[in-house]
Amino acid sequence: MAEPSGRTFSDADEEIMGATYRALREHGYADLTIKRIAAEYGKSTAAVHYHYDTKEELLAAFLDYILNRFVASIREVETTDPEARLTLLLDRLLVAPQENPDLSVALLEMRSQAPYNETFAERFRQNDEYVRYLVKAVINHGIDEGAFADVDADRVTRSLLTIVEGARTRSVVFDDVGEYERARATAEEYVDATLREGDA
Amino acid sequence: MAEPSGRTFSDADEEIMGATYRALREHGYADLTIKRIAAEYGKSTAAVHYHYDTKEELLAAFLDYILNRFVASIREVETTDPEARLTLLLDRLLVAPQENPDLSVALLEMRSQAPYNETFAERFRQNDEYVRYLVKAVINHGIDEGAFADVDADRVTRSLLTIVEGARTRSVVFDDVGEYERARATAEEYVDATLREGDA
Repeated sequence: MAEPSGRTFSDADEEIMGATYRALREHGYADLTIKRIAAEYGKSTAAVHYHYDTKEELLAAFLDYILNRFVASIREVETTDPEARLTLLLDRLLVAPQENPDLSVALLEMRSQAPYNETFAERFRQNDEYVRYLVKAVINHGIDEGAFADVDADRVTRSLLTIVEGARTRSVVFDDVGEYERARATAEEYVDATLREGDA
Repeated sequence: MAEPSGRTFSDADEEIMGATYRALREHGYADLTIKRIAAEYGKSTAAVHYHYDTKEELLAAFLDYILNRFVASIREVETTDPEARLTLLLDRLLVAPQENPDLSVALLEMRSQAPYNETFAERFRQNDEYVRYLVKAVINHGIDEGAFADVDADRVTRSLLTIVEGARTRSVVFDDVGEYERARATAEEYVDATLREGDA
């Protein structure tokens, strides 16, 4: 399965992405403008437009950038133990975001625009498919090795991602990063009940 | 515990709420205007403003209206059996919304604005507290009657609502009402694993 984006980022791109992130954190998605991104970039709006024609194009690149970083963070850890890999994946999905609540706010706004913005919708779909592919592969690996019960890996994966999505939304709507912490416990409980049921 | 809103709606209010619902369905939240609501209402914008000074005030009332309807729908069914009541509650939260995907789209947009709009944030918080109160009461009732295992009802309730929230967001972002159906199965599985664990 291909990664969500084959896009590579130049040094200038990286700087603009950093500027976009800071501008999003400061002004929020609704008030995000190329001018504000340029201010964070420390250059003119023309310098930003040299790389990205429109704000929509820039934001699509920003989504690619965020999603690439997520994929890279998953790759960082080398372990072939399915239990350890599943723990790692769930930590990346539910513990790491606690450090960036502002990013969660911006991403929920972009998520809510998916019905009106096919570019965003496509990115979120690709990313979701990729994350599902990773989680499912780990579960199937665990089943093959006898570490996990013989479940429908696709069904368990989708349930875990529903829990992740719920935490993302609730942490923003209720301004409570503790939602991630609780969802991490819920995911663990769910994994216990489904994948480790044969252990007892 | 008080209901999320003690607000009552006159016939005119009801008509305007219906018009708001239709306008949201047709134009989406971002393009919602008093003019478009008035068009659905079949009267002038002045007639709408006679009841609601600002769009924000009208939308806060709309949230109250939607949440009151949800509470009323829960009340409709009279059963004292905790198992049956929990099933009913989960159906209201995860099966009923499948009939109104457009409403889910509008509500996710309003949810994503909570960090910037204290009026919305307050409504969503009140509603969430009320739904949590209802679900928790049913679980505690079931524990008292010996129908459910002796769990931390608050923890189980929060987990179930995380699953509900995940389904709401995913159904909109991925334009797939099947997310509700799958989340209903996940919730059932979670209830089985936590509340019915002593049955085996």
